[in-house]
Amino acid sequence: MIIVMKNQATEKQIENVINWIESIGYKAHPSRGVQRTIIGAVGDQRDKTALKYAESLPGVEKTMPILKPYKLASRESHEGNTIVSVGPIPIGGPEFIVMAGPCSIESEEQLLESAYIVKKGGAQILRGGAYKPRTSPYSFQGMEEEGLKLLEQVRLRTSMPVVTEVVNPADVDLVESYADMLQIGARNVQNFALLKKVGQSRKPVLLKRGMMTTIEELLMSAEYVLSSGNPNVILCERGIRTFETTTRNTLDLSAVPVLKGLTHLPVVVDPSHAAGHWKLVIPLSRAAVAVGADGLIVEVHPRPEMAVSDGMQSLKPEKFYQLMDELRAIASAMRH
Amino acid sequence: MIIVMKNQATEKQIENVINWIESIGYKAHPSRGVQRTIIGAVGDQRDKTALKYAESLPGVEKTMPILKPYKLASRESHEGNTIVSVGPIPIGGPEFIVMAGPCSIESEEQLLESAYIVKKGGAQILRGGAYKPRTSPYSFQGMEEEGLKLLEQVRLRTSMPVVTEVVNPADVDLVESYADMLQIGARNVQNFALLKKVGQSRKPVLLKRGMMTTIEELLMSAEYVLSSGNPNVILCERGIRTFETTTRNTLDLSAVPVLKGLTHLPVVVDPSHAAGHWKLVIPLSRAAVAVGADGLIVEVHPRPEMAVSDGMQSLKPEKFYQLMDELRAIASAMRH
Amino acid sequence: MIIVMKNQATEKQIENVINWIESIGYKAHPSRGVQRTIIGAVGDQRDKTALKYAESLPGVEKTMPILKPYKLASRESHEGNTIVSVGPIPIGGPEFIVMAGPCSIESEEQLLESAYIVKKGGAQILRGGAYKPRTSPYSFQGMEEEGLKLLEQVRLRTSMPVVTEVVNPADVDLVESYADMLQIGARNVQNFALLKKVGQSRKPVLLKRGMMTTIEELLMSAEYVLSSGNPNVILCERGIRTFETTTRNTLDLSAVPVLKGLTHLPVVVDPSHAAGHWKLVIPLSRAAVAVGADGLIVEVHPRPEMAVSDGMQSLKPEKFYQLMDELRAIASAMRH
Amino acid sequence: MIIVMKNQATEKQIENVINWIESIGYKAHPSRGVQRTIIGAVGDQRDKTALKYAESLPGVEKTMPILKPYKLASRESHEGNTIVSVGPIPIGGPEFIVMAGPCSIESEEQLLESAYIVKKGGAQILRGGAYKPRTSPYSFQGMEEEGLKLLEQVRLRTSMPVVTEVVNPADVDLVESYADMLQIGARNVQNFALLKKVGQSRKPVLLKRGMMTTIEELLMSAEYVLSSGNPNVILCERGIRTFETTTRNTLDLSAVPVLKGLTHLPVVVDPSHAAGHWKLVIPLSRAAVAVGADGLIVEVHPRPEMAVSDGMQSLKPEKFYQLMDELRAIASAMRH
Repeated sequence: MIIVMKNQATEKQIENVINWIESIGYKAHPSRGVQRTIIGAVGDQRDKTALKYAESLPGVEKTMPILKPYKLASRESHEGNTIVSVGPIPIGGPEFIVMAGPCSIESEEQLLESAYIVKKGGAQILRGGAYKPRTSPYSFQGMEEEGLKLLEQVRLRTSMPVVTEVVNPADVDLVESYADMLQIGARNVQNFALLKKVGQSRKPVLLKRGMMTTIEELLMSAEYVLSSGNPNVILCERGIRTFETTTRNTLDLSAVPVLKGLTHLPVVVDPSHAAGHWKLVIPLSRAAVAVGADGLIVEVHPRPEMAVSDGMQSLKPEKFYQLMDELRAIASAMRH
Repeated sequence: MIIVMKNQATEKQIENVINWIESIGYKAHPSRGVQRTIIGAVGDQRDKTALKYAESLPGVEKTMPILKPYKLASRESHEGNTIVSVGPIPIGGPEFIVMAGPCSIESEEQLLESAYIVKKGGAQILRGGAYKPRTSPYSFQGMEEEGLKLLEQVRLRTSMPVVTEVVNPADVDLVESYADMLQIGARNVQNFALLKKVGQSRKPVLLKRGMMTTIEELLMSAEYVLSSGNPNVILCERGIRTFETTTRNTLDLSAVPVLKGLTHLPVVVDPSHAAGHWKLVIPLSRAAVAVGADGLIVEVHPRPEMAVSDGMQSLKPEKFYQLMDELRAIASAMRH
Repeated sequence: MIIVMKNQATEKQIENVINWIESIGYKAHPSRGVQRTIIGAVGDQRDKTALKYAESLPGVEKTMPILKPYKLASRESHEGNTIVSVGPIPIGGPEFIVMAGPCSIESEEQLLESAYIVKKGGAQILRGGAYKPRTSPYSFQGMEEEGLKLLEQVRLRTSMPVVTEVVNPADVDLVESYADMLQIGARNVQNFALLKKVGQSRKPVLLKRGMMTTIEELLMSAEYVLSSGNPNVILCERGIRTFETTTRNTLDLSAVPVLKGLTHLPVVVDPSHAAGHWKLVIPLSRAAVAVGADGLIVEVHPRPEMAVSDGMQSLKPEKFYQLMDELRAIASAMRH
Repeated sequence: MIIVMKNQATEKQIENVINWIESIGYKAHPSRGVQRTIIGAVGDQRDKTALKYAESLPGVEKTMPILKPYKLASRESHEGNTIVSVGPIPIGGPEFIVMAGPCSIESEEQLLESAYIVKKGGAQILRGGAYKPRTSPYSFQGMEEEGLKLLEQVRLRTSMPVVTEVVNPADVDLVESYADMLQIGARNVQNFALLKKVGQSRKPVLLKRGMMTTIEELLMSAEYVLSSGNPNVILCERGIRTFETTTRNTLDLSAVPVLKGLTHLPVVVDPSHAAGHWKLVIPLSRAAVAVGADGLIVEVHPRPEMAVSDGMQSLKPEKFYQLMDELRAIASAMRH
């Protein structure tokens, strides 16, 4: 943290700031410039939020953090790209990976049919929700453990690894025993009790950005998982909340190259939840490959008009096949 | 839900929509107007999100929800104002209530000193956090059960009821045994597993609006608690995230009269977290009384410069006394 | 501007930055600290945006502006509060001022009737629009010069000073000849050609914050007027655009104390446009006094149900009288 | 406009609403459904904002607009895609068009050098600003007419059509005499006096979305130009203001397919102003082609480190050549 003194700060004010810095456990390193004095505060801990209080001390102009507040997630701590394996599928390497499937697991038949569709289209990983965080208590809340068992059966029959959401720290052990990857949804991105718990899991974690989470906060949430001992985190951009209402949320594709610059972790995109409408999913998916994402998570349903949740944003089989063809063409153009 | 057909929709398209509505379990009530046909879809369930898919059917112009998605929280279901008792203190009645205290419980001495200050100033309820949801895993995470025990001691010595936060469904039973009111923080406003669990508690719940939560979503989260069996919910506006960065969040004071119109539940305001700076807390608190809130929750610390969290936004004792004097003057002007 | 070098920046990189700073016309003042070197860049001009490019130079960690980019609007340049006189009415002094009247001037009768209502209620200044910036080209665009003439007549008959909007630099001379104060609407807050032109006027300027404008940008727009020679600027908070849709915009009342800290200019509040609904105008107006605003601009119409624009947010006469009574009570409580 | 009555609305309330609708000049068409009555209000005018007031009448549940408020811009009024010619270059057809050049015109040498670079890279249109809308009055405001003359010379020497910004209605005739296309900047998107004036021009208009303009408002601004007589409008997405600060604005690429669905006008993307940093321009440009935009407007400068404005977001020549190569590859993959 750097503390910039005002132009006219007195020697006594400077000393007072130095003493305060040391009273709360940091070392103070003043640099007396021609125009103003700048005081660096150095300490062991990454958390220097207490130093922000300096702005209330007399003679202080402003404070300015220097270090990024995340460490393990940062590219500085890990130069190459991390490749996370979901079952046998590597995410973050040269191949663009597609995770697809229904929003909710509804029945064995629906899940199996979905799995065959997404496999036929070329997706590598099956998605499907058994625990559903829904805005309304009157909406379908998911099949819970029964859904996990269907996921297990379909996983065995199709040999596709599966990703599914977990919403309660108390369910992590159970979900982990069925899933190849644990998904943390947008609304739980700052559910720190849950993040600490999946940080103790051996399974990789798909961490969705919240609809009002900054990029720095997303990386801090990843840091919770990493610092709890789980190095396998995949970040997912899924749209942020803005004033624009023609789309459900605004897909922030700039976040992909920004994140690739700041962190070594893989970054994927969820166009379905961002857009809220299947018609936008194909162009946004093309854009996601083009902007440099490592993969995609997309909702597909054999009969969206009968889906218990998110039918509006689910692709029908033929649209999904078209999407996969278009993605392959762009991914191929990107490699040359 | 109302489904508006396009001007030029054919009879066949209209029939198709009617059949689809009935296939997913609703009754269809078409009204054939001069210019266009409008189809009402009526069903038992409050959750009509599946009907939104109609917008993908041929001939449909748009869909429009009619019923508010919340029921128990709505003023229609409960005409008078709900008064929630926190220990012996009624919130939502004629008296403006102040909850005050430190952000984090740090030690017996700090908590006791804070409690005497806020009591002296005229606050009715003591606040203090033992479980702290922090953006960084490297920040102080709270004293946990040890903090709850200190809270218990100070509660007994000062006879003030206490409110404290709970962040994990697994901790609800423990926290409930110490607290007079359970606080759900902004980041957990859509932690539905936690909402269901506090919905089974006998203690009242202080539900903070998330920085990304619409007023309707806040009421839906209250509906989770109410529909789980706990009728005692107090809503708290604490600032929303916007593009403006001179304040930490933007306190949405309009939300107070809007909420008072939509719901019978009490509404309080937290100016400390919204503003992020103690200098703004006094004017925003005056505005909170003036706009019609039922109370305030505010951070006070005997020595903000030494606070382990949120020192910047905590009032010193003399500022808190000044605040309470100003609030009394405005509350009194409001009653005449 | 301060340029912070990376921890491991080489001596050569530091020299390179110093040379570049001087090549674009600034003086460089390096301070070599224990951990890192910090370089101050000093120059005559207030505009140091070119220096931001330093972040692209090797070895640079980040840049940080020190000076506020506005000068004449800043409290540092003018310690006391500026009082702006609108006709004989002082704004920014001890008295809370109310400007009220219809959104649009529709007819002599409507304007005169409105003027008598607002005068009876105790408002000091009459508002009314002759040039209306409307989202739709098919909406009523205002009576233009004919409206200004009606304003003149009503001004003479009621002896109330008037404020009216100007939208085109070419109209400033004409509008100025009729109005006691020129209003710049939210959509023109960064219409710099218009700001420069009203900066040459002898009449005071009511500058509305845009729905997308940060507090710093608002002060920069005021700086355009001030630096063009017109010292009489009144700032107006009128709601910002956020994700929340139950109100038309989100009234940012925190902006009032923030602005009062940063600038010597008067600050008023427009609750009508922010809320978009008359039911919210009374509570938000009470909050505006309580938060410390210097005045209010509010829409009143004798028959809102027949208004050509903004009927939904206009107060009927009896509601306006009630508002004024409540404001007086709170303003009086504030003085004690 | 549809007016939905409450479930329990009385016959008298329904009649009252019908009478009011007719008193303000519309025809009322009630449909009495099983559960509630719905009243359509039909009239000649596109502007039905006055009808929104119905929500204040007794017995009314809500109002709901049916017609889109724009007409000429809408796909319903014009089925095929509009192709706008800028000089000899068609925008909106099969070819992806690139407009490139410096932010500000600084000198003949700088502009000529820039033009040769962008031409060599394969751009079809030269951009360069002579009138610069700058947040600070102390920033470079552009070379004005002198800059236009340089643009003319470079246009003749390179045979590239040029696009340049106009900020004041009084300058439109002058700028039009030099430019092949008039640019309306983001801050002027609701400067209706300026829109009406360029609507009378014979030159095409490049209309940038404001940083806080909804898609519907952007189309309404286009409607101002179209309804003033100028059919040649190109829309430009350039980033919206959100809570995220790692990028200057958030490029809303979803707006491209949404706009292509709603309007027949061409849609281009400006990644430079959205991102605010040259490193993001290449990936976002690739995403812009992939998402289906008709073209790109991008900032290129021979020596960004010496640019008087926007150096940080300007591409150096070699980066621009790389960008053009990558765009060609993706555009080609898109055609197959």
